[in-house]
Amino acid sequence: MIKVVSKGFFYEDKIEEALKLYEELVSKTQKEDGCISYNLFRDIDDKSVLTMIEEWESPEALEAHKQTEHFTRLVPMVGKFRKNSELNVYELVL
Amino acid sequence: MIKVVSKGFFYEDKIEEALKLYEELVSKTQKEDGCISYNLFRDIDDKSVLTMIEEWESPEALEAHKQTEHFTRLVPMVGKFRKNSELNVYELVL
Repeated sequence: MIKVVSKGFFYEDKIEEALKLYEELVSKTQKEDGCISYNLFRDIDDKSVLTMIEEWESPEALEAHKQTEHFTRLVPMVGKFRKNSELNVYELVL
Repeated sequence: MIKVVSKGFFYEDKIEEALKLYEELVSKTQKEDGCISYNLFRDIDDKSVLTMIEEWESPEALEAHKQTEHFTRLVPMVGKFRKNSELNVYELVL
């Protein structure tokens, strides 16, 4: 199992537009083979922080996700609304 | 539902000691009321990054967790093995 945490620091006036793109991205990604969970979260103290937390059955499933039409189209669009981002790919320890 | 991501950048020679403390912390926390999930992850590219990803039924359950004996004893001990840390508390958006 692979866990991904993709954290974005968004321009405040672009958050609504980003959320619209994320809506399509989440709905399509959740239907992919090998996707255990894929959800968007918002920091309760800093509303400009939006973070996708993902769980994939295998590295291959995550790789296939990155080749999908919705990923290659929507992720670069969302990227323009962010000041900064952090991506971590994790394996389970405990 | 409340999601917590607690990311730590550890001193490399202290990771084994930290993992021992985390073992007790994870096992005791998973038994708490209101804890949906509580797991430790390690970055696959940077082994010095250890991140707890937590899911709590309510803010009250998270608050009660912070008052437990194992939290108040073990978390400050783990803190000494980290160079740096980031904590985000999230609500679900999508």
